[in-house]
Amino acid sequence: MKKSLGPKTYFFPLPVLLIATYDSQGHANVMNAAWGGIHDTNQVALCLSTDHKTTANIILKNEFTISFATSETVKESDYFGLVSGNSCADKIAKAGMHTIKSENVDAPVIDEYPLSLECRCVSVNSDDQGTTFVIADIVNILADEAILDEKGKIDMNKYHPIAYNPSNHTYQEMGKKVGNAFKDGLELK
Amino acid sequence: MKKSLGPKTYFFPLPVLLIATYDSQGHANVMNAAWGGIHDTNQVALCLSTDHKTTANIILKNEFTISFATSETVKESDYFGLVSGNSCADKIAKAGMHTIKSENVDAPVIDEYPLSLECRCVSVNSDDQGTTFVIADIVNILADEAILDEKGKIDMNKYHPIAYNPSNHTYQEMGKKVGNAFKDGLELK
Repeated sequence: MKKSLGPKTYFFPLPVLLIATYDSQGHANVMNAAWGGIHDTNQVALCLSTDHKTTANIILKNEFTISFATSETVKESDYFGLVSGNSCADKIAKAGMHTIKSENVDAPVIDEYPLSLECRCVSVNSDDQGTTFVIADIVNILADEAILDEKGKIDMNKYHPIAYNPSNHTYQEMGKKVGNAFKDGLELK
Repeated sequence: MKKSLGPKTYFFPLPVLLIATYDSQGHANVMNAAWGGIHDTNQVALCLSTDHKTTANIILKNEFTISFATSETVKESDYFGLVSGNSCADKIAKAGMHTIKSENVDAPVIDEYPLSLECRCVSVNSDDQGTTFVIADIVNILADEAILDEKGKIDMNKYHPIAYNPSNHTYQEMGKKVGNAFKDGLELK
């Protein structure tokens, strides 16, 4: 029996994105966001409130990095969503994290996150409802050698991204492998 | 030490979306897609190849449903990404699944998926590279009573959406809870 829940912003899984930017003074900031995904080949899309410090920084610099929250960084990642860069200028340091300057874009890379996308905007559009929509090229990906296998590929035994669950406001680990894409369905062909 | 992987369409986690539509004859079709996410409050965004049967159906009907692949439906969900609706008219039946007509949109709901978003397009734009970008309102969500708790909320012990891992082409379960959003970070405030 199906039950109607009404319209809701539910989606499974949602990512836990850490968007890192520089302001006009070169100060690094980061925010936590769940509304984003792949827009096209090597491109991401983000939906951000226009009043965020991050949004102002993206409009200014046109570049940013995205890291993905992990099981090891739950507390820090959640904190980055609780505190505004408009009121707390050193939130990254307060969380005990550190930044390095990206070599490819004018944005910080937060060292403690094992994987970061270096992004350059293709379009940034703010509507009159207070929302800004960003589409950006992924110009490079930086990975900690600690999460790579001997072939240089990401080893999911060493990398533990988490998802945001919009129905109960929890974070869940990307857990055990349950199948192989482009393969398991062949059985039904 | 950080290593550059170059530009790649990596994102963690990516969803495993089953997009269901009717064609001009009222035949139900479904495809598997990972490039999509929340666009704004009660809205989704999708990136689809224009040559998919699903894309033609969305352009025709302006409405569709999205379900999320689960641990229980890995094989069927993968199959829906391996076979085109252009060449196999009855892929849903071949996978042993069944559709009911949505009461809110002119699109099928695949009964075997526990959660489905009923969607109506706000914009559908096809570029000259063979890609179509869809933004749609979530007009209602349908949930199996079997995944709801006594208060009518989704019980994640009963609902097991999966993620697509673009780095190794596997499916991973949304696993154990690792934190509470808007809460765990308070400790760092």
